[in-house]
Amino acid sequence: MLLHHASWPEVEAYLKRCKGIVIPIGSTEQHGPNGLVGTDAICPEVIAAEAGAESGFLIGPTFNVGIAQHHLAFAGSMTLRPSTMIAALNDWIESLTRHGFDRIYFLNGHGGNITTINAAFAEYYANFSLDAAACPVRLSQRNWWELPGVGDTCRNLFPVGDGMHATASEVAVTYYAHPQAVKTVEMSPKIAPTGSFTDAADYRRNFPDGRIGSDPSQATAEKGAEIVAVSRGALIAELTAFFGVQPLARAAE
Amino acid sequence: MLLHHASWPEVEAYLKRCKGIVIPIGSTEQHGPNGLVGTDAICPEVIAAEAGAESGFLIGPTFNVGIAQHHLAFAGSMTLRPSTMIAALNDWIESLTRHGFDRIYFLNGHGGNITTINAAFAEYYANFSLDAAACPVRLSQRNWWELPGVGDTCRNLFPVGDGMHATASEVAVTYYAHPQAVKTVEMSPKIAPTGSFTDAADYRRNFPDGRIGSDPSQATAEKGAEIVAVSRGALIAELTAFFGVQPLARAAE
Amino acid sequence: MLLHHASWPEVEAYLKRCKGIVIPIGSTEQHGPNGLVGTDAICPEVIAAEAGAESGFLIGPTFNVGIAQHHLAFAGSMTLRPSTMIAALNDWIESLTRHGFDRIYFLNGHGGNITTINAAFAEYYANFSLDAAACPVRLSQRNWWELPGVGDTCRNLFPVGDGMHATASEVAVTYYAHPQAVKTVEMSPKIAPTGSFTDAADYRRNFPDGRIGSDPSQATAEKGAEIVAVSRGALIAELTAFFGVQPLARAAE
Amino acid sequence: MLLHHASWPEVEAYLKRCKGIVIPIGSTEQHGPNGLVGTDAICPEVIAAEAGAESGFLIGPTFNVGIAQHHLAFAGSMTLRPSTMIAALNDWIESLTRHGFDRIYFLNGHGGNITTINAAFAEYYANFSLDAAACPVRLSQRNWWELPGVGDTCRNLFPVGDGMHATASEVAVTYYAHPQAVKTVEMSPKIAPTGSFTDAADYRRNFPDGRIGSDPSQATAEKGAEIVAVSRGALIAELTAFFGVQPLARAAE
Amino acid sequence: MLLHHASWPEVEAYLKRCKGIVIPIGSTEQHGPNGLVGTDAICPEVIAAEAGAESGFLIGPTFNVGIAQHHLAFAGSMTLRPSTMIAALNDWIESLTRHGFDRIYFLNGHGGNITTINAAFAEYYANFSLDAAACPVRLSQRNWWELPGVGDTCRNLFPVGDGMHATASEVAVTYYAHPQAVKTVEMSPKIAPTGSFTDAADYRRNFPDGRIGSDPSQATAEKGAEIVAVSRGALIAELTAFFGVQPLARAAE
Amino acid sequence: MLLHHASWPEVEAYLKRCKGIVIPIGSTEQHGPNGLVGTDAICPEVIAAEAGAESGFLIGPTFNVGIAQHHLAFAGSMTLRPSTMIAALNDWIESLTRHGFDRIYFLNGHGGNITTINAAFAEYYANFSLDAAACPVRLSQRNWWELPGVGDTCRNLFPVGDGMHATASEVAVTYYAHPQAVKTVEMSPKIAPTGSFTDAADYRRNFPDGRIGSDPSQATAEKGAEIVAVSRGALIAELTAFFGVQPLARAAE
Ligand code: NI
Ligand code: NI
Ligand code: NI
Ligand code: NI
Ligand code: NI
Ligand code: NI
Repeated sequence: MLLHHASWPEVEAYLKRCKGIVIPIGSTEQHGPNGLVGTDAICPEVIAAEAGAESGFLIGPTFNVGIAQHHLAFAGSMTLRPSTMIAALNDWIESLTRHGFDRIYFLNGHGGNITTINAAFAEYYANFSLDAAACPVRLSQRNWWELPGVGDTCRNLFPVGDGMHATASEVAVTYYAHPQAVKTVEMSPKIAPTGSFTDAADYRRNFPDGRIGSDPSQATAEKGAEIVAVSRGALIAELTAFFGVQPLARAAE
Repeated sequence: MLLHHASWPEVEAYLKRCKGIVIPIGSTEQHGPNGLVGTDAICPEVIAAEAGAESGFLIGPTFNVGIAQHHLAFAGSMTLRPSTMIAALNDWIESLTRHGFDRIYFLNGHGGNITTINAAFAEYYANFSLDAAACPVRLSQRNWWELPGVGDTCRNLFPVGDGMHATASEVAVTYYAHPQAVKTVEMSPKIAPTGSFTDAADYRRNFPDGRIGSDPSQATAEKGAEIVAVSRGALIAELTAFFGVQPLARAAE
Repeated sequence: MLLHHASWPEVEAYLKRCKGIVIPIGSTEQHGPNGLVGTDAICPEVIAAEAGAESGFLIGPTFNVGIAQHHLAFAGSMTLRPSTMIAALNDWIESLTRHGFDRIYFLNGHGGNITTINAAFAEYYANFSLDAAACPVRLSQRNWWELPGVGDTCRNLFPVGDGMHATASEVAVTYYAHPQAVKTVEMSPKIAPTGSFTDAADYRRNFPDGRIGSDPSQATAEKGAEIVAVSRGALIAELTAFFGVQPLARAAE
Repeated sequence: MLLHHASWPEVEAYLKRCKGIVIPIGSTEQHGPNGLVGTDAICPEVIAAEAGAESGFLIGPTFNVGIAQHHLAFAGSMTLRPSTMIAALNDWIESLTRHGFDRIYFLNGHGGNITTINAAFAEYYANFSLDAAACPVRLSQRNWWELPGVGDTCRNLFPVGDGMHATASEVAVTYYAHPQAVKTVEMSPKIAPTGSFTDAADYRRNFPDGRIGSDPSQATAEKGAEIVAVSRGALIAELTAFFGVQPLARAAE
Repeated sequence: MLLHHASWPEVEAYLKRCKGIVIPIGSTEQHGPNGLVGTDAICPEVIAAEAGAESGFLIGPTFNVGIAQHHLAFAGSMTLRPSTMIAALNDWIESLTRHGFDRIYFLNGHGGNITTINAAFAEYYANFSLDAAACPVRLSQRNWWELPGVGDTCRNLFPVGDGMHATASEVAVTYYAHPQAVKTVEMSPKIAPTGSFTDAADYRRNFPDGRIGSDPSQATAEKGAEIVAVSRGALIAELTAFFGVQPLARAAE
Repeated sequence: MLLHHASWPEVEAYLKRCKGIVIPIGSTEQHGPNGLVGTDAICPEVIAAEAGAESGFLIGPTFNVGIAQHHLAFAGSMTLRPSTMIAALNDWIESLTRHGFDRIYFLNGHGGNITTINAAFAEYYANFSLDAAACPVRLSQRNWWELPGVGDTCRNLFPVGDGMHATASEVAVTYYAHPQAVKTVEMSPKIAPTGSFTDAADYRRNFPDGRIGSDPSQATAEKGAEIVAVSRGALIAELTAFFGVQPLARAAE
């Protein structure tokens, strides 16, 4: 069930059975010559939506602009400052716990978000820890590509050139989700360089077309469908454990 | 063109022709017994997406959680604190202007956002005004229901009970956008009460099922389609004037 | 009664009869060739002071620097950033509610403040709404020129060229309040242009002498007296309703 | 000249002769059984206004709510948090320096403000120091009771029981400034206890009627006039030195 | 060379040869029954100090309170909120870069700090990235136990029960650094449990004596000496590469 | 007892006997030609450590970077912004009070910190004062050179040229604490000028080698030992009074 497609009485009813919710969290940033700027938001969003439809677990809105300062030398990339993101995530968390949600699972689509999400969790827990109060809420984050089985699937599909940014896998997932947005671009070099980076100028100097280590011209909607299918199942299994509730009867929608 | 479906070279090319972008901005909050929690985000999102597809103007990601503290007594509602929203909007704006965007148009779907968006604009302009520098960027916000012609259309479709919150119009737009989420609920009373509110407890006391002045059981996807069609045209006309650029050849997608 | 002229035992006694207080809130910003930089603070201050003297309702200190980034290209204008103003207003509100004040009425003198005041209110209410607690306090803001009857009075006095900024009305009120500060300046053009603005440079470009749509050379202390008299009465009526208490015996002072 | 009573062209003209401005800064807090809640704002305000009228130096608006958390157990007291006050003072300073003011003199009326004003200055200077830029602006604060000659005057007038808070001197100054607000209250004990304090509860426990070490029943408007006269002269001398400009021809007003 | 033991002319001279500096960064938090509350600060401090003495590279002050909200149920633990730590680290970084330092290497002693340090780096880089300016500074963090060779050394010394928190290795390092603080405590159970945690109450419930997976009763000053020796060499090698400068002649001290 | 050298059970045991703790607080800033950059942190640290060892009172970690924006024109100086320091100090205070510490004594080594520490205290107390709650905690700060007897000792040792910054006294204390860091530098002029300052550029212009009014070439480790001995005794006496507990049996270490 998607929170955005539910009415409040439906959410109220859901909370009687389950106090868990998934927040897809991504980024708005360049993904190389043929990748979508929305890739990191789209991937967790589509995986979560499919898992929510199958399981009945509730899927919240997508946190769609994250930490992408290093991508800002490429047109269309957007970033929050980490301190802003910590504040925003805490407002999201406080809103949800107010209703009784006590298991909030962030399905993350962007490596650059991980540390700030973790810092935001510590900011939230600190309210309780400094107060000598026990926090009734558990927060969790998971990168979709680290769900059990997903890494193997991606390596099978793209034994060479899956890469680290603008990966063949993530581009494939977005092509599956939005086939009308498929782009055909020749990669040059075939496989992008690898390395590290600091700010946006440094990133662009090191990775001139935005990719790191990848050949995303291998991406197809079909391969994306396979990745999503594996991810969906793995996500449902994780949620079942984390929420401590069996998947619900499928929502009406 | 949707920013999330574009590649960075496509955005770079767009910027050579036009420096304007639309940001749909909404809220995640209860919309009565048959309205979607995502209504205020979905409405500007669908109108902007259709206008972007027709005109080629660029549509950014949706800012999907806004100022909704007064709805928090209804399950599923989420809010930012205004100070958080000001910080987040300024990060969005600074990201976009970094690429050369100098006309940013927020298409708003939630009355409760208006004042904080305006404050965020003042926060941004103040950087320049305090610096004795001329700001090269113009920011604009518009409620979709105030686009020319939209009010008349809604009044024609719903002469009685369109209302102020969980309006028949906005619910109709979401039913058009997401027909699988249509909900059939009998309203009681037929038309909700009107009045004012302060915090969440006060709101719920005054408006027990969340609606203000509306009978959204009148909403249908067909009526929503009509509203979107009028809104789309009016939005393109506004953007043409604000961006100072004629609608572009339709994007490939 | 003015809070600044009261002793704490007098305030304590007041609180036994009434839990309401008025905060005049304005701005320090240019008001054209013959208008005072303090106009927007002086107007609500004088109206509130007279209403307080007549009714016995308590009038707090004037919040005298507001959101005026757009006026900074004119010497003497001062601004807060909106995020600062939200923090400051919340400290004022928390201070007052600590003593038991539960109706705080901001009498506003500056259009540019409206949205940030509203955001500050939402920031305050959010503390309760996110906590699932009912807020015992009601906050209200009102522009003095929108008090019942004031608009008509101004239109009668200045049928042409009252304008939008550095209005004949507000200048008249300040001349009444501070007759020693009356300034005689020929306006050129007679009536200032109208339009919109963004930052300070844009404002000055559009409105070279600071006025918008007004001819404040019509202002006189006598006309100001008339406006204040109408405003005072209307304010007392509003406070009586909002505070839920009849005007008190006039304070000793 | 009062900034609030000047027009922007008058301020512009002033800046050609002098780049200095005085900001009276006080507090809104209890001042014992017969002292005004506004005492700490009124004292610097009246001294500065008289000095400004005599010298032509420019006097800005009064910063009227300061650091008074320790007074909050007495009705009517208001406080800013120090972090808020630092932000607000920096906005005031940045606004003024934008126009070319490069000597800003805070005439302080409240001991509790001193450290936060100093911290605000460091916050401002740090912008330059961290940037390796030379700051063209000098900030200064002075307690009015420490102006040369004022301490002697107060000791002469009140050889016994001038005290530390709700002093006879400051109450006298307010009685001079606002004779209609004079209050006759018997003090018990005649002279209040002395000591230290932490938060508001601790303060009230130690100083049950709000005074520290004072017998303000000695205050009269006449004695206040004498204090103001000495303070006015001393202030003009200090401003002449700090601004590096001789007192200007008296402003028209 | 220790910054705290250098004079400013010595630092100025250093900067002519090398623009790199090391900041030891740790935490103040419980480390089980026989571990020091300062363990995570002491470890990087002693390793950095020895490396600095041998190589002449500059070692700054220790950032000694970090992110330890989860340890607050054990007496003596202290934490910063992540948002505070981001602000503080940025002030440290801006101070250092002001002098020309362009390689800042944080030698970290606490796993809980990693994500917030990373977020602080992004906060710093974002200033440049949003400004379309190239950042001349490179920031790096490294956990001391991940320096090349250190893990092997620890595994050799403590093949069983080195653990994850209050590890035998880190306790050994502190015993070497401060032999007068060695504590002899029997562990029960011999090896602590492992698992995850959220806030402080959850941590204490899961790990009753504070240890995770470790038997720190194996720690001795001798073993600590060995770990420090390996760490010192590995650190010098890393700094040589990161600073791009050969180790300097040993400082006079 | 040093917190950093204690285990949590030792701290827990301490809290049963005493709820007081000392936090040495200093700065990292230039101290003239022969003074250490760490002087202001080292002085309170060594005095507190010796007092803690003798008395058994608990000594926390040193807050080692303070308000030193005015020293940034000299290499190696570091600063926090005052707003950052207020936030950090409040996190330290909240951490300690969480464990039951209710007397926190900051032994300060840097004049520039005083006002911001005081503001931080007001920020902390305001939480209680605005809440109408009594604060159970007392915060205190003391400059080590103002401990009873210390001023006399310093004047005896250095009748001429002790000075105001980079004083002979404080340099002597650091030479006692770290004899390997003694530096022999001829002072020119013998005694540094005195005066005031604003930002870093102004400071360096007025005080070219960093000293104010001092001749620190008089400093020796022996004189430092004498100062520390007097300070240690005076500190123990103050703590005994402030904590309301007799010095404890000396800790094991
Ligand atoms: Ni990605
Ligand atoms: Ni709506
Ligand atoms: Ni006005
Ligand atoms: Ni006072
Ligand atoms: Ni550790
Ligand atoms: Ni010093």
